[in-house]
Amino acid sequence: MSDFLVRPIGRIESPLTERATAPRQGHEGAPEAWLVFEPEVAEGLRDLNVGDRIVVLTWFHRSSRDVLSVHPRNDTSQPERGVFSTRSPDRPNPVGLHPVEIVAVDGLRIRVRDLEAIDGTPIVDVKPQLAL
Amino acid sequence: MSDFLVRPIGRIESPLTERATAPRQGHEGAPEAWLVFEPEVAEGLRDLNVGDRIVVLTWFHRSSRDVLSVHPRNDTSQPERGVFSTRSPDRPNPVGLHPVEIVAVDGLRIRVRDLEAIDGTPIVDVKPQLAL
Repeated sequence: MSDFLVRPIGRIESPLTERATAPRQGHEGAPEAWLVFEPEVAEGLRDLNVGDRIVVLTWFHRSSRDVLSVHPRNDTSQPERGVFSTRSPDRPNPVGLHPVEIVAVDGLRIRVRDLEAIDGTPIVDVKPQLAL
Repeated sequence: MSDFLVRPIGRIESPLTERATAPRQGHEGAPEAWLVFEPEVAEGLRDLNVGDRIVVLTWFHRSSRDVLSVHPRNDTSQPERGVFSTRSPDRPNPVGLHPVEIVAVDGLRIRVRDLEAIDGTPIVDVKPQLAL
């Protein structure tokens, strides 16, 4: 099968700098963070507004990609599970999914609430959350 | 910024073969489909079971990646929008998000309900849906 190239469209700017101390999920006390986009994708951002709920897709660039079994939430008292039944950042294609709310928009910078990704994490895509 | 390489972990096997006739979203009449995984990731699949709700991440391999504005749902009577406020498959990094339910598991083949991706679409990742 062919491979595909992800070209990041931006990066996370966050007070979180260490994977070890970042919350496991956004609703577990994650801070506000900026999504900082590349000028080339500006046109694609124009209908993102304060109050919108979006899904940010990231690339966990510090992850191990050869991992197929993990202790859920890194808790070694729990048995290992197949990685595709977990949200571990260590996985073959380490794409992160982050449901967040927009709290500010400033040109190429969009501020969101409750984002657990660490500073410098590349952004792959942004989509609206479906009403489902 | 560096680019990243996605190596597909499997492919969709579906009766849907044409992008033009596929439903826009899974809950809009999409059929059941098989997720067919590569033998190398078998270990990662072992805790996926019938009844589980998962998110399948795909790569829309037939998409245009230079698109930043689209008519929502391809309806030209609607004004164009920035692509990141839409679910268009045409976008810079065409990753699809598909919330589905597992209806059968047969080794490397997992059958799911309501998947709108077309036959042959590469699979990037599988994650459990969060209870949120």
